[in-house]
Amino acid sequence: MNLPIYLDNASTTPLLPEVIEAMNSVMTDEYGNPSSIHAKGRKSKSVIEAARKTVAKVINASVAEVFFTSSATEANNGMISSAVKSLGISRIITTKAEHPCVLNTIQSQKIDTVYLSLNSNGEIDLYELNHLLSDSDPKTLVSLMYINNEIGVIHPVNKIAELCKEHNAYFHCDAVQAVGKYKIDVQKTPIHFLSSSAHKFHGPKGVGFMYINGDVSIEPYLYGGSQERNMRAGTENLYGIVGLAKALELAVHEKESRMSHIASLKAKLLEELMTHFVDLKINAGGAQTAAHIASISFPHSDKSELMMFNLDINGICASAGSACSSGVEHDSPVLEAIGHDPKRKTVRFSFSHLNTAEEIDYLIEKLKTLTPLQS
Amino acid sequence: MNLPIYLDNASTTPLLPEVIEAMNSVMTDEYGNPSSIHAKGRKSKSVIEAARKTVAKVINASVAEVFFTSSATEANNGMISSAVKSLGISRIITTKAEHPCVLNTIQSQKIDTVYLSLNSNGEIDLYELNHLLSDSDPKTLVSLMYINNEIGVIHPVNKIAELCKEHNAYFHCDAVQAVGKYKIDVQKTPIHFLSSSAHKFHGPKGVGFMYINGDVSIEPYLYGGSQERNMRAGTENLYGIVGLAKALELAVHEKESRMSHIASLKAKLLEELMTHFVDLKINAGGAQTAAHIASISFPHSDKSELMMFNLDINGICASAGSACSSGVEHDSPVLEAIGHDPKRKTVRFSFSHLNTAEEIDYLIEKLKTLTPLQS
Repeated sequence: MNLPIYLDNASTTPLLPEVIEAMNSVMTDEYGNPSSIHAKGRKSKSVIEAARKTVAKVINASVAEVFFTSSATEANNGMISSAVKSLGISRIITTKAEHPCVLNTIQSQKIDTVYLSLNSNGEIDLYELNHLLSDSDPKTLVSLMYINNEIGVIHPVNKIAELCKEHNAYFHCDAVQAVGKYKIDVQKTPIHFLSSSAHKFHGPKGVGFMYINGDVSIEPYLYGGSQERNMRAGTENLYGIVGLAKALELAVHEKESRMSHIASLKAKLLEELMTHFVDLKINAGGAQTAAHIASISFPHSDKSELMMFNLDINGICASAGSACSSGVEHDSPVLEAIGHDPKRKTVRFSFSHLNTAEEIDYLIEKLKTLTPLQS
Repeated sequence: MNLPIYLDNASTTPLLPEVIEAMNSVMTDEYGNPSSIHAKGRKSKSVIEAARKTVAKVINASVAEVFFTSSATEANNGMISSAVKSLGISRIITTKAEHPCVLNTIQSQKIDTVYLSLNSNGEIDLYELNHLLSDSDPKTLVSLMYINNEIGVIHPVNKIAELCKEHNAYFHCDAVQAVGKYKIDVQKTPIHFLSSSAHKFHGPKGVGFMYINGDVSIEPYLYGGSQERNMRAGTENLYGIVGLAKALELAVHEKESRMSHIASLKAKLLEELMTHFVDLKINAGGAQTAAHIASISFPHSDKSELMMFNLDINGICASAGSACSSGVEHDSPVLEAIGHDPKRKTVRFSFSHLNTAEEIDYLIEKLKTLTPLQS
């Protein structure tokens, strides 16, 4: 077992050797600009279109509905702001637990915004959403993530999509934590806008994709050349796109074995925690949560105050549920939204198929020195 | 000599082996999210900050003035639209020969826009610019590229910057064709906004940088996390940034030898063309042009109509000066702006230090079969 142990896979994941190899095969030989009509350009173009086909097949979309971007942040910024501009959206329904790239973009639109209430597990109330949508007067965009990145709660995107369809609302779904891990079929789930980022499923950083339903027409958000069918100008990230497609292909191919392994790691961690420690809180513990995310709140103590620091110096990479700003740690907006006790110390452990049971054992041993034990 | 011969380096350039190596060293070992505060995150952060230092040193900027982006297109879109919003810009002075990502972004601002006249060499008139700027009433942004991507004319950025400074106007410079090839010192040339793209100097596609003068404060154009000092949200393209810095470092280190080789190739091509062919026009031939760009207009003939097609099937990658739209070839806006005869066929040959004199010989031999010869 090598240190550090990496338990921050909801933040980003290591590149897989197969992905590095796929990227290198293109980096060495292909360099034409996909917009050039000569032989080198056409070859690059074909590489990108093959990648687009891979992505489209995974989410059951048409290739014309898949657009490569530099990140999910870019995709969410672009889709939300263009949708508001192009579709006459006058109201957005969302939650306070969305990713900052969604929340801040929504706030910048300066239009009527309704935040759905969240229960202590971070779940929305479908009746509340239905009630809001029943007032169909304002043209509405519903923006809800598939899986919450901090506490792992899985939202019922199928039901949300159906409600949106029924009430003629548009549905934007930040699916960053779900793509490559959970099934997404845009033929079965009527989503209008979806975003994804390669580095969350062992692909490269700096590349993502967005799905825009073919029946929806929105203005481009980057002006320039006619790349990505005029939707997103700028020379394509050729190597990144190849890496994204390879990583997604592997994730889907190995989904069952990866997810069952990841689920067993999470189950082991939770069981060990419950056995050895007192007064823990498993955030969103009463809800359906993603297999790769475990958000744990430790009781307040002198030791737990230094939890993140001590995990780090003990060779464990994990993430605080709280954002550190100007040296003062506050609860994250997500934890605030579920009424979390700010005196508790929250740590998000997030897994990939590369983690091992041995690493969980090591983590538990270290945690025993960092927080009160079961008496 | 291997076919195809790549003479489209103003469009994009091959990755150098040293750049691929630098990227691989990070792709294999470093994967932490630069925003994570644990060991893996800090390591990635330090890799990015080292790259930023390299870039800052090359253009003589402070590290706080350099921001990584996914492309120059993104940088130009972002800087122009944010400048208009944040600085109260009410007039933009530009030319019709700017890159589409600049022109289309300017047009989307829907504010007063003045297009400077261009002479037949594509040069601006500094007196006209001075005259316009003397009317200092509207808060003005001047947007002019350093080197025109199609005809290679070099604009006097130093004088333009000084005029802007004198008249309290802001200066945005698309320096995509210049970075790594021509000296840029932002201490000596008072530019406010500058953009660059790695794949133009043998770095990876999908990454670029922007320089924003430290005295200027504009709003972010992508909302989300606090990456790039809150200016540009989204997880950083770690491998791309490393490749950009390595490629820029090499370009600057080898600048003299590369540029003199490139200049000799261009001189050889022009001399051979003048010796063997009739009625050619060298676009911007009367102006100072970049060493790596030669834009040639061939006389109208049945053969020249198929010039691009025939170059391609003869294993020569070059670029038409004209954009192909709906199957009908029109002159590009740049050629239109310099009063180019639309019946002529324009080809842009653009070089890198990887090209050879032997390739120019091959090109000349092939051209002899594609256009009228000297009698």
